[in-house]
Amino acid sequence: MFAVAITLLVLNITVPPPPSPHLGHALGQRWPEYLAYVTSFITIGIIWINHHVMISRLARADHSILILNLVLLLTVAVIPFGTSLMATYLKQGQGDKLAAGVYSGIFLAMGLAFAALQHQIMLHRAHLLKVQLSLERRRKILARMRTGLPPYAIATGIAAVSAYASVAICAALAAFYALPIASSPDAMAD
Amino acid sequence: MFAVAITLLVLNITVPPPPSPHLGHALGQRWPEYLAYVTSFITIGIIWINHHVMISRLARADHSILILNLVLLLTVAVIPFGTSLMATYLKQGQGDKLAAGVYSGIFLAMGLAFAALQHQIMLHRAHLLKVQLSLERRRKILARMRTGLPPYAIATGIAAVSAYASVAICAALAAFYALPIASSPDAMAD
Amino acid sequence: MFAVAITLLVLNITVPPPPSPHLGHALGQRWPEYLAYVTSFITIGIIWINHHVMISRLARADHSILILNLVLLLTVAVIPFGTSLMATYLKQGQGDKLAAGVYSGIFLAMGLAFAALQHQIMLHRAHLLKVQLSLERRRKILARMRTGLPPYAIATGIAAVSAYASVAICAALAAFYALPIASSPDAMAD
Amino acid sequence: MFAVAITLLVLNITVPPPPSPHLGHALGQRWPEYLAYVTSFITIGIIWINHHVMISRLARADHSILILNLVLLLTVAVIPFGTSLMATYLKQGQGDKLAAGVYSGIFLAMGLAFAALQHQIMLHRAHLLKVQLSLERRRKILARMRTGLPPYAIATGIAAVSAYASVAICAALAAFYALPIASSPDAMAD
Repeated sequence: MFAVAITLLVLNITVPPPPSPHLGHALGQRWPEYLAYVTSFITIGIIWINHHVMISRLARADHSILILNLVLLLTVAVIPFGTSLMATYLKQGQGDKLAAGVYSGIFLAMGLAFAALQHQIMLHRAHLLKVQLSLERRRKILARMRTGLPPYAIATGIAAVSAYASVAICAALAAFYALPIASSPDAMAD
Repeated sequence: MFAVAITLLVLNITVPPPPSPHLGHALGQRWPEYLAYVTSFITIGIIWINHHVMISRLARADHSILILNLVLLLTVAVIPFGTSLMATYLKQGQGDKLAAGVYSGIFLAMGLAFAALQHQIMLHRAHLLKVQLSLERRRKILARMRTGLPPYAIATGIAAVSAYASVAICAALAAFYALPIASSPDAMAD
Repeated sequence: MFAVAITLLVLNITVPPPPSPHLGHALGQRWPEYLAYVTSFITIGIIWINHHVMISRLARADHSILILNLVLLLTVAVIPFGTSLMATYLKQGQGDKLAAGVYSGIFLAMGLAFAALQHQIMLHRAHLLKVQLSLERRRKILARMRTGLPPYAIATGIAAVSAYASVAICAALAAFYALPIASSPDAMAD
Repeated sequence: MFAVAITLLVLNITVPPPPSPHLGHALGQRWPEYLAYVTSFITIGIIWINHHVMISRLARADHSILILNLVLLLTVAVIPFGTSLMATYLKQGQGDKLAAGVYSGIFLAMGLAFAALQHQIMLHRAHLLKVQLSLERRRKILARMRTGLPPYAIATGIAAVSAYASVAICAALAAFYALPIASSPDAMAD
């Protein structure tokens, strides 16, 4: 499902309608679409990797895990809409702040859904893990997960002041997570 | 395939064409799209989980199971159309009842296709199950499955009177199935 | 990939633009879309099942199999276009025959690609099969496969005379393959 | 994910809006769409096969491999946009060279991302391979991989002079890779 959502993002990059006497200019004008595409693509990609790690830790799932997972997928599936909204309005004089707020807000909702699912697994369904982990270890995984939430909350709030600042935080977070520095044994898929 | 259908739903949430002087208002006006999105997403998600449970019970499939499964997939794949139709007409003075009826009717058709497939497996192809189940147990699974059909039949019928009532039933059913109360050993995936 | 193509078909079923004073009539007028949807859905579904059976017979694939398989996927992926073309022009006075011919012709091309792939596996790469089959048995599988080709050739040719006859043959073939009578040990997936 | 991108390509083949008095002519005029479709389809298909071979060599992945893989997927996912841009502008008097350059350039970027990922695996993460390979063998794999880059660089550069020449090189490369001659033990999937 992540595969479908991540590939649908490209539909938000639009071809200028022909004839376009200055195609280079028309393509250049669309930079918010490219920024939105790359930011959303990397963000979904990182969540995809982390989701894979989380799922592969589970021996089986119960109803609560399946439903919380469905809520997470719902927020991921809505990202192509947020991406399109942000790309469409970022350079408009009106609506840009709201569009950026919706965009960052969807990432925040995704982070909250992910944290809720992780919380349920680590604290209430630890017996479903393939390999038992100490409470300390599980709390550490949860804590690291939650460090991504405040920046997205800030990005969502700051959209009321500046659409560009909001989007810049989201783009910076995507770049940060893609850096080798963010590497950790927990982020490994196998 | 469920993954594709569930992700395509987002194409029904549309971005207001710019310039939109009152983007917040324009987005708010689109609430039928959000309601339709969430309702359809959870409904497909629940069916996905139940389908996974059903399939993982089978050691192998024969022609009748494959074809009934294809019919089920056909009804699932048509949900994005029903969702779009309902979201487009719910607030229109004309066509809203028919659109809501088609929307509920597709869910009813999906439920009937699922029940037919489950019926074929449990009563006529029980020898294809990985683990043999008693007839009593198989009848119980079938009976529980069928309890979802009358509400969708009511939702489809009531659309002739009120589009909102019809859609409200579908949304309530999605919410109900997502509640912990609906949990049961049969709804577990592993 | 079959999953994506089969689900994309729904994009060819269009919602009448609102306001539509006679939504029921507008939906009824779109019957070629529904016919095209169901016919293409079942045809792709049947090919999907047969493809799965064919692939699961192979221990591994070589370059020739991978490339012939890619050509088969190319013809499958083009079905949503053929479906849309046929649904758009079937009731038009002009272009209906050509559209029906393209539609049937894509099914014929898919059948030819499937037969070429099956031929390569059964006659030239039999050593790659998981379980060795006698030459007689392999020839029988190939022969049965090829019986589907003449009807599609006829459907393609007859489009020059009547678009409806051409489409009716394609729909009848889909219905025939879905009937229990078409069942056979080779069509079983496991 | 390759499956989704390869299937989305068909959305670039458009149905002439009815009524179309000369549908055959209208379809013939769209030959750049068909050329773009087949070229992109085969190119993604070949990359898909090679990617599968590369991934199946790995016992597990670390952060650097996951991120480089994400960058590769990003370039693959953008191919439907490049395909649409090229098909739209190839026959236009203006913008055709830029569109062809973007099209070839995306393939070049994809090749570079693939080479970077392969380089990281073969030279810096060889201990993650399932079966250890000699340095000489790994260098050979890398060298063969890189032979595809100069032609795409030439196709991208030559677009400044002729859009047709640029696209012809991309189409010829797709045809070449699909030929039996390009077969090699490394290109085998299993």
